[in-house]
Amino acid sequence: MRLNNSADVMNYFRGKRHQRNYYVAGFVDGEGSFSVSIVKHPTQKFGWMINPCFQVYQHEKHREVLELMKETFGTGSIYRKSGTHPVLNFSIDSRRSIMERVIPFFERYPLLVKAETFVIFKEIMNAMEKKEHWTKDGFIRIATLAYSMNQQGKGRKYTLQEMLATLPD
Amino acid sequence: MRLNNSADVMNYFRGKRHQRNYYVAGFVDGEGSFSVSIVKHPTQKFGWMINPCFQVYQHEKHREVLELMKETFGTGSIYRKSGTHPVLNFSIDSRRSIMERVIPFFERYPLLVKAETFVIFKEIMNAMEKKEHWTKDGFIRIATLAYSMNQQGKGRKYTLQEMLATLPD
Repeated sequence: MRLNNSADVMNYFRGKRHQRNYYVAGFVDGEGSFSVSIVKHPTQKFGWMINPCFQVYQHEKHREVLELMKETFGTGSIYRKSGTHPVLNFSIDSRRSIMERVIPFFERYPLLVKAETFVIFKEIMNAMEKKEHWTKDGFIRIATLAYSMNQQGKGRKYTLQEMLATLPD
Repeated sequence: MRLNNSADVMNYFRGKRHQRNYYVAGFVDGEGSFSVSIVKHPTQKFGWMINPCFQVYQHEKHREVLELMKETFGTGSIYRKSGTHPVLNFSIDSRRSIMERVIPFFERYPLLVKAETFVIFKEIMNAMEKKEHWTKDGFIRIATLAYSMNQQGKGRKYTLQEMLATLPD
């Protein structure tokens, strides 16, 4: 069997929704990412905006697997990553879509490698649904959780301490 | 649901062999590799040995996913990769196991991203089963196929031309 393009892939999985979903869980467990960026944003309450995001990267040669993600989650966008590498990015960053599409999916179809990251991601999403980030304590708790994901904040522009030091008393 | 170790993972997938296999196909499509190395070996007919191998790497924190691979294929070994990174490698390099376990698996459970690489890998395995590498023409064909995989021989010690130039007339 050889699946050369999105149509072949969609066809192969037609009528096999569960099988497709297990394949997607496995692929995401290898190549996906759950992240929560926190960026400076002067009009936000504490001067920072919290952005949860679910992403999958792939070389542009294999757009079909990202099309499969888009079909599976029923939402999301595919775009070329800036920079010189020919890489495409599938991402879902709307909080509503994450709550309604992404979280229920991975509660049903298992992640092994990313299980722990997903649990933290879900906790942050649930806290934001309850608007905990509108209080200073809640904001600090969410930021601390976010920095505990994906190699403890490695690659972030600001350390947790630097960011928290900017919060008003 | 949280799967913290190999036992949890195996338990989760108990009685769900197909679901597990689709998960495995998805994971391998992201993180696995099919490769055919060709190394200098003075006692082999043409002075080179052809080594097909199926591998999956993972950070040592997530050994459970490699245990799942081992259970799924019913063979293979897990060892620490040499070097400083804490990475484990699951590999199947016996030609018999590849023919009997790996190839039938991915004929049944689909690869999307690595579909093309897998087709070439299978063609090499089939050619070796027919002992084509024992003839010079066959050896050249197999070597050429091997070099067409995984970024056209990038990262190999010898170029295809350098290797073929050493073959006896």
